[in-house]
Amino acid sequence: MLAKRNKNDSPQAKVINISHGDGGLKTGELINRCILKYLKNEILEKLEDSASLYIEAKNIAFTTDSFVVEPIFFPGGDIGKLSICGTVNDLVTTGCTPFVLSLSLILEEGFPLKDLEKILISIRKTIEEINLSNNGADLRIVTGDTKVVPKGFADKIFINTSGIGLNQSNIEISPPKIKVNDSILINGGIGEHGLAILSQRKEFNFKTGLVSDCAPLNSLVNDICKASDKIHAMRDATRGGLARVLIEMAQASKTTLKIDKAKIPIKKEVRGLCEFLGMDPLYIANEGKMVIFVESKDGQKVLEAMKKNKYGKDSQIIGKVVKKGQGIVVLNTEIGTKRILDLHYSEQLPRIC
Amino acid sequence: MLAKRNKNDSPQAKVINISHGDGGLKTGELINRCILKYLKNEILEKLEDSASLYIEAKNIAFTTDSFVVEPIFFPGGDIGKLSICGTVNDLVTTGCTPFVLSLSLILEEGFPLKDLEKILISIRKTIEEINLSNNGADLRIVTGDTKVVPKGFADKIFINTSGIGLNQSNIEISPPKIKVNDSILINGGIGEHGLAILSQRKEFNFKTGLVSDCAPLNSLVNDICKASDKIHAMRDATRGGLARVLIEMAQASKTTLKIDKAKIPIKKEVRGLCEFLGMDPLYIANEGKMVIFVESKDGQKVLEAMKKNKYGKDSQIIGKVVKKGQGIVVLNTEIGTKRILDLHYSEQLPRIC
Repeated sequence: MLAKRNKNDSPQAKVINISHGDGGLKTGELINRCILKYLKNEILEKLEDSASLYIEAKNIAFTTDSFVVEPIFFPGGDIGKLSICGTVNDLVTTGCTPFVLSLSLILEEGFPLKDLEKILISIRKTIEEINLSNNGADLRIVTGDTKVVPKGFADKIFINTSGIGLNQSNIEISPPKIKVNDSILINGGIGEHGLAILSQRKEFNFKTGLVSDCAPLNSLVNDICKASDKIHAMRDATRGGLARVLIEMAQASKTTLKIDKAKIPIKKEVRGLCEFLGMDPLYIANEGKMVIFVESKDGQKVLEAMKKNKYGKDSQIIGKVVKKGQGIVVLNTEIGTKRILDLHYSEQLPRIC
Repeated sequence: MLAKRNKNDSPQAKVINISHGDGGLKTGELINRCILKYLKNEILEKLEDSASLYIEAKNIAFTTDSFVVEPIFFPGGDIGKLSICGTVNDLVTTGCTPFVLSLSLILEEGFPLKDLEKILISIRKTIEEINLSNNGADLRIVTGDTKVVPKGFADKIFINTSGIGLNQSNIEISPPKIKVNDSILINGGIGEHGLAILSQRKEFNFKTGLVSDCAPLNSLVNDICKASDKIHAMRDATRGGLARVLIEMAQASKTTLKIDKAKIPIKKEVRGLCEFLGMDPLYIANEGKMVIFVESKDGQKVLEAMKKNKYGKDSQIIGKVVKKGQGIVVLNTEIGTKRILDLHYSEQLPRIC
């Protein structure tokens, strides 16, 4: 439709309007006064259609994620922090150093500019934290895009972040490298992100002190890779939870994994809420949990390194790779029974990320 | 919300449902049976969180675009073709060879799977066309993401494509390289994409034979770069139309451009419709038009090369860079007057791409 000119089209508008996305003067205003204000660097400010980059590495990682989380602000984070952490955590799973990001916004007409600013500030802070321990690299957003859709055609804000990571070592870290006897580790409690989101939904009426575990895991992965050169695979346990990651890793490596349920860090409050809601914490999304497969002789050394990291205090060795096989995950439960994990057929919770 | 299980959740569902986006079994089904069916390659099929790539070039281009076009199928294209062309055209503006793409989908619950398949087929065909003339490189989608939002929280389908291009030459093609006396060229008629989209909107009641010019311009750019090593800058004239690109290029290079209105290729039907609708074709979006700045001595040679390309038959030299200055575009009109182009304050048409 041709959007009608309305009060939101004034230069003093405090909300996003259709002309913020049309490529004209107001798009320029939004980019210059809002986006560049927080994310400016000498590549992004050129505002070219693509960013020209010089890279030293021959091995790179490339990833993309769209974020549609609801609500956009939640205990422990927001859609901005989530999108940067999600993409950076995907890059570091291959042992790469996060190098550059893209940021693409789909905004709903009427979205408050002050919320957009809060999100951009959160993005900047998250990138600043990442750069405290980024192997000397200076992660930046170097290219972007902004689209606006009329009210009712999107939900407030959707963010896509894509990223490139540089791999300057020759070690391949990837699920097919998983070997029999590998130790399996995780850096802390599961289920916190999903339950923190759930507690904010109007349909649910419970209070919880739980906050999302949303965090950038680059410094943790650096510490892990410094502790051992026998890291075989890593993956962050997001949608589908720890269960999904374990199943996918078992399938990709054609191995059987044995996991001790009692060893999996789960906060008391997560346990309680899950019982109350009839949910299984193994399948609830995390946004700051990495599952690591390492040669067993180095398991303890890696565990100790992880425990020293801010995001690894509750790390545990939760199981091991027991044999070559058809790609299954056997869970030894706390009451001594065995259970084979499968992918759930239906969702537990939509718009978790 | 916790989505209710409904008839769309059956394995035979013909529409997207919430569980297609939850990271469980149905997400896997969608990826394997639908997405990989059309886009499979040995990197994408690993389904890792990020794609590991080996690259030879040290200079790369990186770009991102989200597409929210409405309608998603239109004369001359669809959101799938548009998203690939848009990203590839951004990459080739720097003289790069498109190397890899990411594909991230935001799907609305209830979106027909057959429409998704049509879009994926269109994506595949567009990539196949690009690979016919891609400097020997095999462009592929190597990483992706799929999110689903409940009905009413997005409009059918939004697509983000990000891309990496490789620059194996040492020539920098970029707006600051624009010089006084450069010839300015375009590869054909303007305004066709915008009007083709407009004709499909319910609010408008006109028929037109116009089709979108949506096209991948990599082969055209190859021909241009073969014809001259004095290409200074290129940009595709999408949102904001030819006017926006010229103004941005003038500003980025701090030069004054002189454009002959009479030389700009505009189809009779575009002229007529624009008069009828009160629109200015200079500001209407294109999706297959490249504006090229080349050293004047090579202008004619480049024009001839462009005219031989499928997407350049109606190419024209439309003006030149006249002097260093404050970044303005002077349009010599057909009736002998001069007009300085400015960025429109308000939109002509939302959701054009």
